[in-house]
Amino acid sequence: MQLLPGFRDFYPEDCALRNYVFSVWRSVAARYGFVEYDGPVLEPIELYRKKSGGELVGQLFDFVDKGERHVSLRPEMTPTLARMVAARERDYKKPLKWFCAPSFFRYEKQQRGRLREFFQLNCDILGDPSPAADAELLALLIDLLRGFGLGPEDFVVRLSDRDAWLQFAQNKGVAVEKLGDFLAVVDKLERTQEADSRRKLGEFGVELEAVRAFIAAPEAEATKLQGIIADLKARGLDGYVTVDLTIVRGLAYYTGLVFEVFDRNGKERALAGGGRYDGLLELMSDGKVKMPALGFGMGDVVLANLIHEVPAAKAKCEAWLAANKAAEVYVVVAEEAQRHNALSIVQTLREEGWRTDFAFSAVKVGKQFQAAEAVGARFAVVVGAEWPEIKVKSLATRTECVVTKEHLSQQLRTLDV
Amino acid sequence: MQLLPGFRDFYPEDCALRNYVFSVWRSVAARYGFVEYDGPVLEPIELYRKKSGGELVGQLFDFVDKGERHVSLRPEMTPTLARMVAARERDYKKPLKWFCAPSFFRYEKQQRGRLREFFQLNCDILGDPSPAADAELLALLIDLLRGFGLGPEDFVVRLSDRDAWLQFAQNKGVAVEKLGDFLAVVDKLERTQEADSRRKLGEFGVELEAVRAFIAAPEAEATKLQGIIADLKARGLDGYVTVDLTIVRGLAYYTGLVFEVFDRNGKERALAGGGRYDGLLELMSDGKVKMPALGFGMGDVVLANLIHEVPAAKAKCEAWLAANKAAEVYVVVAEEAQRHNALSIVQTLREEGWRTDFAFSAVKVGKQFQAAEAVGARFAVVVGAEWPEIKVKSLATRTECVVTKEHLSQQLRTLDV
Repeated sequence: MQLLPGFRDFYPEDCALRNYVFSVWRSVAARYGFVEYDGPVLEPIELYRKKSGGELVGQLFDFVDKGERHVSLRPEMTPTLARMVAARERDYKKPLKWFCAPSFFRYEKQQRGRLREFFQLNCDILGDPSPAADAELLALLIDLLRGFGLGPEDFVVRLSDRDAWLQFAQNKGVAVEKLGDFLAVVDKLERTQEADSRRKLGEFGVELEAVRAFIAAPEAEATKLQGIIADLKARGLDGYVTVDLTIVRGLAYYTGLVFEVFDRNGKERALAGGGRYDGLLELMSDGKVKMPALGFGMGDVVLANLIHEVPAAKAKCEAWLAANKAAEVYVVVAEEAQRHNALSIVQTLREEGWRTDFAFSAVKVGKQFQAAEAVGARFAVVVGAEWPEIKVKSLATRTECVVTKEHLSQQLRTLDV
Repeated sequence: MQLLPGFRDFYPEDCALRNYVFSVWRSVAARYGFVEYDGPVLEPIELYRKKSGGELVGQLFDFVDKGERHVSLRPEMTPTLARMVAARERDYKKPLKWFCAPSFFRYEKQQRGRLREFFQLNCDILGDPSPAADAELLALLIDLLRGFGLGPEDFVVRLSDRDAWLQFAQNKGVAVEKLGDFLAVVDKLERTQEADSRRKLGEFGVELEAVRAFIAAPEAEATKLQGIIADLKARGLDGYVTVDLTIVRGLAYYTGLVFEVFDRNGKERALAGGGRYDGLLELMSDGKVKMPALGFGMGDVVLANLIHEVPAAKAKCEAWLAANKAAEVYVVVAEEAQRHNALSIVQTLREEGWRTDFAFSAVKVGKQFQAAEAVGARFAVVVGAEWPEIKVKSLATRTECVVTKEHLSQQLRTLDV
């Protein structure tokens, strides 16, 4: 009995790491006033055919269910979000600031940083067309990564503007219907041989030198990005971004701002990416709902790799894991005749919020102390023949004291500073 | 574009309720020293064919993937748990106390309390055969429901013992290989016409009266349950349980203790159910790993229905929701020229942990105060012409004061008591 390739078991130590990532995602998103939503894991396949575009549709885990519906595991969130918002947009004040952290499924070739089931934080702002919304989303993206202990020396957000590319392409006479194909060539520029790029661009009547000059001096075209950067500067976050027009993003639905986040070493795949998709809700609702929108996704796999590579981030993660071990208090039953009294102590401690464990059967006191260390307890509470006197021992400092049940929790709080 | 039948969208208000349920589940399980794990959403279908038994296998969302593997969305957790533990049982000290709260998928007819995608808390103790472990799991189950504000007048845990039924059946001459079929008749006793039950039991050579007498006076046979109840009594939790041998549980793999939780009004389906499955790991590992185990599942749908029906539980839920609204602080930009200073205030508040929101574009101050109320903020922080003086206003008490940036967070904490 084996796992499917590209899928993961989360043993407790793996799940704790995942919960750390989720807890930072959720707490930073909440500080930005984002509220959580979610959708179903399974959707009608038309939802993705309508929007996701070529590559993703080829990677769907799709099938026909027992009711003859052609369905698919979700490969991304944006179609579900667009469906949900289009259905009830009048129920919410604009702008909507929504996030979710679900799992996605893509039938991809396995490689470093790519799995077939992965988690991804999605953050979106809907109903606001302004560069101020662009800046808010980018600030959230930056503060999410800062929340993991990553700094400006560890990652950079590369900003680009599809509108600037649109204007460039129109100036060069590229037909509107060929814009997607043209941008696909630009998207692959860094990974393609110069002669190939030159030939492919030539098919659109554009010279490689013109593209390079545009990328090298984007200021004239990309003034919108300067306003966004000024907003980030007011927040003290401009040191995390750079303008880089080589970023165009693969998906067809982006308009305006697009961006990707990379680690400064360039060892990993993109940590996150997103942009504006001002036309998508109109497309999804067959013209009924027009709403500007932008968002990004940040996967868990590449992020976890980077956290392990950056010492400050690793230390922050490990401190969180150490503070969230299985138990804080271990109740040692030193005298089996006192088991029922020990159980009442266990119950009291748990009701007062202490993560508490104990041994189910009679084992030697030394073994129980070993078990206490194994579950990460900071305190042992020894119930024995001296009942109703109880011994409290700090496992770190080895200091001991004797208390009664009434003062137990208070004594633990005193020792716990 | 519609949702699939039996699946749910979680709009922010729905997701908040779900997060409330998850937060109680996670915090109570943690207090009991349980650690979280998870597995993949998709598994090879053999995993379920090997164990889950008749009804569940007929309800699978199964298909053949792009790599010709016959796979299924998970309908329950126990097979995945057994696979995981069997693979690495030597890496963990016994007993294992593990929980998870994943989504499951069953192609069922839609009805109240049943969906095709639902969440379910699973808690299991592995590696301990003692009634003390049985009692610990039941105590957790009870405290989970108490964690939602439910009391002994709201729910009851009905305890039964498959071993006692086994002995009864053997005494009556029921063949071992027919035990499952016999228990299936007992399981349906409450929902079946008397004449039908009499006829069906007759096929096993058992009289209805004998079954009824056994159910009515279980003490002689079910002494194991009395030890479990004594343990719960030491914790002050015996008022939540009752012995009821009509409970036998549908799944084939249960041994020993089995139990189900019902609301006292009997309006809802079972809130939770579980029991011992001491032979399952041996079955799953082809005899390699023998490990006693027990666990339960608690779904989100029936639980949420009950929370809404019980006033104390509803009040507790609503208090949590009120404390977790989108924002705590709303920064009002009273003077557009001060926007960049307002952004620096927003950033500072967020870095100090305040859930903070503001308007992206220039709107009237009154409108901004309305937006502050809409997102649930308790405070407005007004940045205007008086900068660097900032006005802080409590939206509940309408009290106001003036501070500088350095003292803002401290002032908010003072007002927030």
